[in-house]
Amino acid sequence: MGCDVSERGARSKTQLVADRRELHRLAEPGWCEVFTASKVVKVLQESGWQVRCGADVISRDARMGLPPQRTLDFFLNRALDHGADPVTAEKLRDGFTGVVGTLNGGAAGPVIAFRFDLDANNGGEATSRDHRPVREGFSSIHEGFHHNCGHDGHTSMGLGLARTLARIRHELAGEIRLIFQPAEEGLRGAKAMVAAGVLDGVDYFVGCHLGVQALSVGEVITGYKDILGSIKLDVNFTGKSAHAAISPHDGRNAVLAACVAAQNLMAIPRHGDGDTRVNVGRISGGDSRNTVPSSADLSIELRADNADTLQFLRDTAARVVAGAALMHEVTSRSDLVGESRAASSDPELAKIVHEAAREVPQVKAIRDCVEFRGSDDAAEMMRAVQGRGGKAVYFGIGTELSAIHHNPRFDFNEDALPIGLEILERLTCLLGAPGSGARPRN
Amino acid sequence: MGCDVSERGARSKTQLVADRRELHRLAEPGWCEVFTASKVVKVLQESGWQVRCGADVISRDARMGLPPQRTLDFFLNRALDHGADPVTAEKLRDGFTGVVGTLNGGAAGPVIAFRFDLDANNGGEATSRDHRPVREGFSSIHEGFHHNCGHDGHTSMGLGLARTLARIRHELAGEIRLIFQPAEEGLRGAKAMVAAGVLDGVDYFVGCHLGVQALSVGEVITGYKDILGSIKLDVNFTGKSAHAAISPHDGRNAVLAACVAAQNLMAIPRHGDGDTRVNVGRISGGDSRNTVPSSADLSIELRADNADTLQFLRDTAARVVAGAALMHEVTSRSDLVGESRAASSDPELAKIVHEAAREVPQVKAIRDCVEFRGSDDAAEMMRAVQGRGGKAVYFGIGTELSAIHHNPRFDFNEDALPIGLEILERLTCLLGAPGSGARPRN
Amino acid sequence: MGCDVSERGARSKTQLVADRRELHRLAEPGWCEVFTASKVVKVLQESGWQVRCGADVISRDARMGLPPQRTLDFFLNRALDHGADPVTAEKLRDGFTGVVGTLNGGAAGPVIAFRFDLDANNGGEATSRDHRPVREGFSSIHEGFHHNCGHDGHTSMGLGLARTLARIRHELAGEIRLIFQPAEEGLRGAKAMVAAGVLDGVDYFVGCHLGVQALSVGEVITGYKDILGSIKLDVNFTGKSAHAAISPHDGRNAVLAACVAAQNLMAIPRHGDGDTRVNVGRISGGDSRNTVPSSADLSIELRADNADTLQFLRDTAARVVAGAALMHEVTSRSDLVGESRAASSDPELAKIVHEAAREVPQVKAIRDCVEFRGSDDAAEMMRAVQGRGGKAVYFGIGTELSAIHHNPRFDFNEDALPIGLEILERLTCLLGAPGSGARPRN
Amino acid sequence: MGCDVSERGARSKTQLVADRRELHRLAEPGWCEVFTASKVVKVLQESGWQVRCGADVISRDARMGLPPQRTLDFFLNRALDHGADPVTAEKLRDGFTGVVGTLNGGAAGPVIAFRFDLDANNGGEATSRDHRPVREGFSSIHEGFHHNCGHDGHTSMGLGLARTLARIRHELAGEIRLIFQPAEEGLRGAKAMVAAGVLDGVDYFVGCHLGVQALSVGEVITGYKDILGSIKLDVNFTGKSAHAAISPHDGRNAVLAACVAAQNLMAIPRHGDGDTRVNVGRISGGDSRNTVPSSADLSIELRADNADTLQFLRDTAARVVAGAALMHEVTSRSDLVGESRAASSDPELAKIVHEAAREVPQVKAIRDCVEFRGSDDAAEMMRAVQGRGGKAVYFGIGTELSAIHHNPRFDFNEDALPIGLEILERLTCLLGAPGSGARPRN
Repeated sequence: MGCDVSERGARSKTQLVADRRELHRLAEPGWCEVFTASKVVKVLQESGWQVRCGADVISRDARMGLPPQRTLDFFLNRALDHGADPVTAEKLRDGFTGVVGTLNGGAAGPVIAFRFDLDANNGGEATSRDHRPVREGFSSIHEGFHHNCGHDGHTSMGLGLARTLARIRHELAGEIRLIFQPAEEGLRGAKAMVAAGVLDGVDYFVGCHLGVQALSVGEVITGYKDILGSIKLDVNFTGKSAHAAISPHDGRNAVLAACVAAQNLMAIPRHGDGDTRVNVGRISGGDSRNTVPSSADLSIELRADNADTLQFLRDTAARVVAGAALMHEVTSRSDLVGESRAASSDPELAKIVHEAAREVPQVKAIRDCVEFRGSDDAAEMMRAVQGRGGKAVYFGIGTELSAIHHNPRFDFNEDALPIGLEILERLTCLLGAPGSGARPRN
Repeated sequence: MGCDVSERGARSKTQLVADRRELHRLAEPGWCEVFTASKVVKVLQESGWQVRCGADVISRDARMGLPPQRTLDFFLNRALDHGADPVTAEKLRDGFTGVVGTLNGGAAGPVIAFRFDLDANNGGEATSRDHRPVREGFSSIHEGFHHNCGHDGHTSMGLGLARTLARIRHELAGEIRLIFQPAEEGLRGAKAMVAAGVLDGVDYFVGCHLGVQALSVGEVITGYKDILGSIKLDVNFTGKSAHAAISPHDGRNAVLAACVAAQNLMAIPRHGDGDTRVNVGRISGGDSRNTVPSSADLSIELRADNADTLQFLRDTAARVVAGAALMHEVTSRSDLVGESRAASSDPELAKIVHEAAREVPQVKAIRDCVEFRGSDDAAEMMRAVQGRGGKAVYFGIGTELSAIHHNPRFDFNEDALPIGLEILERLTCLLGAPGSGARPRN
Repeated sequence: MGCDVSERGARSKTQLVADRRELHRLAEPGWCEVFTASKVVKVLQESGWQVRCGADVISRDARMGLPPQRTLDFFLNRALDHGADPVTAEKLRDGFTGVVGTLNGGAAGPVIAFRFDLDANNGGEATSRDHRPVREGFSSIHEGFHHNCGHDGHTSMGLGLARTLARIRHELAGEIRLIFQPAEEGLRGAKAMVAAGVLDGVDYFVGCHLGVQALSVGEVITGYKDILGSIKLDVNFTGKSAHAAISPHDGRNAVLAACVAAQNLMAIPRHGDGDTRVNVGRISGGDSRNTVPSSADLSIELRADNADTLQFLRDTAARVVAGAALMHEVTSRSDLVGESRAASSDPELAKIVHEAAREVPQVKAIRDCVEFRGSDDAAEMMRAVQGRGGKAVYFGIGTELSAIHHNPRFDFNEDALPIGLEILERLTCLLGAPGSGARPRN
Repeated sequence: MGCDVSERGARSKTQLVADRRELHRLAEPGWCEVFTASKVVKVLQESGWQVRCGADVISRDARMGLPPQRTLDFFLNRALDHGADPVTAEKLRDGFTGVVGTLNGGAAGPVIAFRFDLDANNGGEATSRDHRPVREGFSSIHEGFHHNCGHDGHTSMGLGLARTLARIRHELAGEIRLIFQPAEEGLRGAKAMVAAGVLDGVDYFVGCHLGVQALSVGEVITGYKDILGSIKLDVNFTGKSAHAAISPHDGRNAVLAACVAAQNLMAIPRHGDGDTRVNVGRISGGDSRNTVPSSADLSIELRADNADTLQFLRDTAARVVAGAALMHEVTSRSDLVGESRAASSDPELAKIVHEAAREVPQVKAIRDCVEFRGSDDAAEMMRAVQGRGGKAVYFGIGTELSAIHHNPRFDFNEDALPIGLEILERLTCLLGAPGSGARPRN
């Protein structure tokens, strides 16, 4: 009676690791995950899920921070080279790399959505032999791109969950949606999937992350709170070049404007009513040593733990940029290239994660409410669901890391994958089995 | 035949030194020279000059950088305490401390104007006994004010010239005007006298300075070139105070705006077409350590060797101030408190200075054309005269200095005074004697 | 049996208000509270307390941020003019304005210390008639100084407590110490009293503040947490002056160094492990518009909610100052002029404050644990007591304010005074009565 | 009697243009001029000059600003692809791309050196059809590199001079040296040739430039003065990366250090004793938006019209960099990647250029002494020759430009080439012909 995943043997660590390593090796950045998403489509279809992808699940105009066309083309071609199905790839190409699988249980019940993120990150991977992916032959073949945030593991667990749930579908009530999201890095993808309606009607939303504040296999954090809201801005200053010796007065120095802006962005005052973060992660400007530089770019991110404080940062940053431009008589342009609101897990749902985790033998330590201290655009999906009366949770799966997230030496202990998967399976049963304690909102 | 001053004994070093030391002791800053100007009026009247002073020679609305009323009142009262004539003081009070004496020669001839500046400077005088004014008892009795630029010497020579010329008036042709100008420091007074018309009709304009690039008694520079044009600005930023711990985000930080402005003013680019100077000489802002500061002030000066370049500085500085204000959401206000254009001596007139200097036995070295490398609002008078077809010269009288101009230890070798006076006398004869080579323009 | 303060009528609002207004009128800044402390000495002595003051309770070398001697002299003389006892004043003069009263109860028991702060603040008081102190004739007669933080009310309650407890001394067990501390503003006085040993042996420490996050009469906050630790620094940069036109390269620009420092202090990064605050509340530098400025000063404060984070701020600020000085080839000097660690109230003691407050009829609303969001050097005393095993509480007495603390229009509703006093009295009984539930640590 | 070049027809505009366009098309940046220098070697050898090249004329350790090995390799291979002689290329490879040709006249006489620069510049060439090199098929085939300073024309004239002088060698007295220098852009090559001794014993040094302040064919400037001395610095700041949200305090922000440095470099004060220039032409730093950036680079140039002033800039810039690094606790490293002293043409030699130019029929306008207002490391060679008693001149050949030097649209009117060549020929005759008025120094 009810679903029981514990004895099925459905979980194969071998499969999880193989999937994860294949994705790691073919690391694809945000909006370029054609190979990865094609693979997801294939597994879902083979397992009997209804599958939507591409423009059906990604709202064109809500996408942020797309890479240049030549990058999109490069990864499309690489995906085809490595065996992506051309028909699927055609749907995914040009920045539509989302996938949604749907499975209807055998009885009426709640709509439960799970979200997994697909993208690798910008940043080269370590190449020395003491980096396990090198030693064991699965390090990224795409120079400058690296799964340094564990999304390969997330997607691998998502594929595992797809296989398991397909097998026990008749024991489940309600509807299960597996959402595979592109472009989490930079907070660029979630809003485009929300805008496409993929969260409509969801009663329970579940997201998870590997290795965030839980740094050993067997640890679980049942629900993060205070996922920081964030705005990502690309700012350009454009001035006027001039010979630096003959007519420096004729130049309009875009680099100087950018330097003034960077310093004053870092000097945005602390906020009395909440935690804030400001970073100018990249700067570049000027072509030639002996010319007054006419162009400069900044990559900015602003974060805050509540909406008002984030708005304060946004307004203040806009003034800083405008003031720096005015000061040096250059023009400025600011593009929003990523955005996610702040969110926290619902304690009620975190409690059920706790229950699920407790049933997993390898789980050694469970913590209930921990600050996320970073951002994830799963928060946009959480807020969408919470805004319509549903419940959302974002929980943590412990694993040892060889280096912190976003580091060239990042890797994780793959023993975490079957544990994470089992928690997801048991959570599905608790939420979606007929007769489970969990109830849809209506 | 013609005037000859050489044998008159009119020049008394004793008198020159006594006058200079009296003025030095009663140092009065710009627009406050009530004692000094009263003394000038008295000497001129006693010598038989026609005298105008106060609002007759100072255009009310063209005055710049007036001190607060309490400073004006303080020096008015001090002047009366020290014996200034109350009737004269009444005319001079409240920032009308200019005097013009006129003498008509015995024949038709050119209008020759001499300008002497009256004011002491802000800045305390050295108080140790190795400073001669202390040792010999004539150091400033007004704390915080010091004749550290030699204007006491200039005025003393002006009084000497008044006495001499009165005595030889019948040998002179044309009209002589002695212009005693307040508030040269900060370039605040000249424009107000020009606007009052005191330069109208002048054929030859003569100004002089002690100890600028001529550092020994007996040196003469016959005409400075490239007196720098300059603009003096007082800038205020006004923001909003807030508790620095509870609500720093609520403040609008005027000090930060001022600091950004100061740095970026110093970073105004060099100009390819001329020499420029920028200085932020003073900053002050904020009341309390634990409050976001709501007000800040900058004292700025901009200098350049030509009008276009000065305009470039002015425009750029205005943008820097506006940009800094916008950046920190404060308001800014900029007051023009001093101004003088760039100017150069006319070589024709410098040549006559050369001739005059050559006749003075104590003159050992004559240089003809030297950059001034500073500013003096005599330049405004020069430009006014040159603009109407007259000729102007600003020449240098050498003297040893105990410390550079504007230094608390500034003092000069008073042996320069009779030499300077004799050059002025001989120059008058060369320009204004009937039958002299010099000719008015019409 | 047990002490009962409720029916004594010992509390006179008339007396509390009279005392408060006398102190308000004779506002004395930190280390200058000769009149105030003399009055405290007198009241304590008349009520039968043992009294120590001056160098007995203030450690000379631990004092921070003393004003110039002329300020100390001014207020000494003012105090004498207004009737301070000359013998007492002699002990208090020159920055030794602390007082400690001791009372031994009739039985063995804990040592209970109460701390009241004496000083007014820098900052002029409003002068318009809609400011009640003006209208009712008790506004500050010392221009530029104002009891704008309610310490006059604190001291007034301290005097009330002294009178009450003297009357019921035989009902009390243990020892009561009343600590009247100078120079809370700027966090300058507490450490000097701790260093003098006045907290030695204390079991319970009690401090309180009017109107902090409790803005109506009848509200009580039983114990603040997270009183921010803070460091106050006066930084001077000394460079070299030079003529701004002739030899700008010869100057070493102290104002520019100060501006760079100010901007980069504000840009000290947020700390991931705690709340921080940075403020540059004042800047001043330069003498003369046309001189490269040779000196500049900053008034800085750094705050944090834990010791490590405060140390991070301190180290980082020191580097910013050193770097700015190196950059502009000026020297820097940094003086620590105030300091207090972070602290939080002990919940056990806050619980007893709750109990005491609950017994006071006019108390309408009690909150138990609120962030202080500012600094108070009572925290130094709390840490001293807590460090040796005692318990400490800092609680809040609600009152309407006419304007926020440190504002020229600050005033408070004096109805809060008898309520605050009654809480203090009842708390003493709860802690210090024989048979009370409260127990000393040993 | 004496040499006469006027009637020889030696000059072929066709040849000059063909040579120039071949070099333009195969644009090679500094230290990479393998094709260009090979061609020079071939022409010199075929014309009968003694030829030295590679390490014989370039001092290994005196080279500055070498590109990375992969750039050196790329251009070596390109040169071989386009037919460079492999034996010569082997000598020139890896940054030894200088050539010196020597010709001894038929009689004793002075040593006369001519210098031509070989390198193209970094910066893409315009690709639209209104750019003549595109239209006429000789635009650069090396993307990102462009002969945008006319060195292709200089080298073409150098080859022309080689051919002419070889033909009239018996009419010449003394020794002629043709110096073909790599890496003028960035002032990187001249010192390495001086250090190799190629200027030893030179009596007369001649350099020239197309289109500098002489913007029409037929104009000649007989000798530039005040070629600015300059220092080129590459500065790197290295800090420590950290997660921008979780642990911003753990980062050491190299971008912020670079911004502070850039701003304060631009704020280096004007110098009272000479003209200065400062430029930060390029900035880049940081990898990822959400990471505290650990590395940043600045490309800096400093220029001044005399050695003391340049030293002032150098010292001040070093302090700014060190101060910025200290301020943000990052390390800094500064590499000197280019350098040339200030220099002026000797008027005596400029007079002979005047004489030579006057004889050329197409020359329409001759100016004698014009500020260069930029830098050229020919100045290092001039100073080397002048320092040993020789005379040096750097003169200008007028030509219309389609856009200013260093602009993507730069091109020049090739009619200037035969005129420039004829001036060089006639100048050689004036200096080097037996019986000419010009005399060696000994």
